[in-house]
Amino acid sequence: MQIVEVGPRDGLQSEAATLATADKVELIRRCLAAGARRVEVASFVHPKLVPQMADAEDVVAALPDDPGVSYIGLVLNRRGLERALATAVDEVNFVVAAAEGYNLHNANAPVEDTMAEIETMLPAAREAGKRTSVTVSVAFGDPFDGEVPTRRVAELAARAAAAGADEVALGDTIGAGVPSDVTDRLGAVRRAAPGVALRGHFHNTRNTGYANAVAAAVAGIDALDAAVGGYGGSPFAPGAGGNVATEDLAHLLERMGMRTGLDATALAATATWLATRLGTPVAGMLSRAGPFPPPVTDS
Amino acid sequence: MQIVEVGPRDGLQSEAATLATADKVELIRRCLAAGARRVEVASFVHPKLVPQMADAEDVVAALPDDPGVSYIGLVLNRRGLERALATAVDEVNFVVAAAEGYNLHNANAPVEDTMAEIETMLPAAREAGKRTSVTVSVAFGDPFDGEVPTRRVAELAARAAAAGADEVALGDTIGAGVPSDVTDRLGAVRRAAPGVALRGHFHNTRNTGYANAVAAAVAGIDALDAAVGGYGGSPFAPGAGGNVATEDLAHLLERMGMRTGLDATALAATATWLATRLGTPVAGMLSRAGPFPPPVTDS
Repeated sequence: MQIVEVGPRDGLQSEAATLATADKVELIRRCLAAGARRVEVASFVHPKLVPQMADAEDVVAALPDDPGVSYIGLVLNRRGLERALATAVDEVNFVVAAAEGYNLHNANAPVEDTMAEIETMLPAAREAGKRTSVTVSVAFGDPFDGEVPTRRVAELAARAAAAGADEVALGDTIGAGVPSDVTDRLGAVRRAAPGVALRGHFHNTRNTGYANAVAAAVAGIDALDAAVGGYGGSPFAPGAGGNVATEDLAHLLERMGMRTGLDATALAATATWLATRLGTPVAGMLSRAGPFPPPVTDS
Repeated sequence: MQIVEVGPRDGLQSEAATLATADKVELIRRCLAAGARRVEVASFVHPKLVPQMADAEDVVAALPDDPGVSYIGLVLNRRGLERALATAVDEVNFVVAAAEGYNLHNANAPVEDTMAEIETMLPAAREAGKRTSVTVSVAFGDPFDGEVPTRRVAELAARAAAAGADEVALGDTIGAGVPSDVTDRLGAVRRAAPGVALRGHFHNTRNTGYANAVAAAVAGIDALDAAVGGYGGSPFAPGAGGNVATEDLAHLLERMGMRTGLDATALAATATWLATRLGTPVAGMLSRAGPFPPPVTDS
């Protein structure tokens, strides 16, 4: 099971403390050392909206060049795409919300306008040699509009695939979904957009995040997002809550016999380190509980 | 899906603050008002070992008499059984660990001695008109011994069923299990003890508790334990971590279309109230995030 590390972007963007560029690079280096191979490293969003991401270009420029690693940049609009394409990011991830309420807050535009713009941006990103993905956010519920129809999610996924996206991610931005929703929506998206790679992005706002990730894994999803330490939450989504913690998810999946390539114990140590930099506690639990079974020590 | 409220016993026993008897009764009354129909109200353990449970008899004596509600008392040995049978509890829950390490710490006896004693106590409890259950604790891993073989869990469950237990509970005392373990062990116990009711008891030590509860529910388990607020942890299990929170589990299962009979929002309010009494924060998240979709309010 491929886990995409989104801690450096989604994990940080709502934190009050602005992490220094060198600390962001250090965070990414630690994730790579623990086995991460796809990392969402920055969002090319206006720095007034998300001050934590103001140094996006500087972060990307400082990253080690490793052909086995894919760096992802988040893009919300044409200006963001231009910025992303001027950097060395390997992938561009576009975002459209499945409901008007959140899209108006996140992108300041109706869903249709954002989706139509993504349809023009996808070919441009591909022509620039970037791998592309589209995240359908609030795919399990919207903080403003409430319930989100499965059909709406499937339609957006189909349009993204038709426009050339290599991957579609379903984002449970506010932790509204439950495992049966995950199974249902993945099935609907598979039928609407056969062949496109699928990724799940689950927040643990209501203690459903890990159960949802397991449901997605069991349903054969291609990748799961997670943020080291379980940090995160959208500045535009009331009560968003953190992402599933990479260290906890990796430990869980490995115990289920799925290979993640990640060192959960090293990630737990990184979560503890990050907490000292941010001044906010780790939401993930492995850094406190330790792995099971406990490591054998010489006594 | 029947949810057994274990907050008044497992939820409280490791808390530093000793709750007044009247507050314990208030806690139980609030759970009943929110729909709980089976409640683990006390442990008849030596007060020197678990001071929080020293007023077990007083708590039971103060409870409302409701034929639709079943009060459960936890019993670790013969002396505990005598105390429980002298009260109005409706059910007696015995406990045996699936590994020597934890049983020696929890019951100060080898597993075989505890199981043999339970086999003599079960008929006595039944003759006294009590419903009976046996919890196999550390059924997914032991804090001292590490991995626990599935076969060991199935053997103990079979002996409990053969000795007359109405129900067998599998306890993930330290949050060591993952969903595939839950499915495997429930299957093994069903084959070893066909016909006995099954209950799951999951701690969220490593963020696996809700995923495990969902796996158990999907596998058709008869009941799940949960503690309002997600309090809990064993005084004898290092790093045990809290139970799954009743309000979060009820919200999750209801959103999956399973009826629990519980009012998750009322339980979330009870968790917040309990936090003020205990002086420790709620682990459950629904009390902060609120239900999804948010309730419609007059504006």
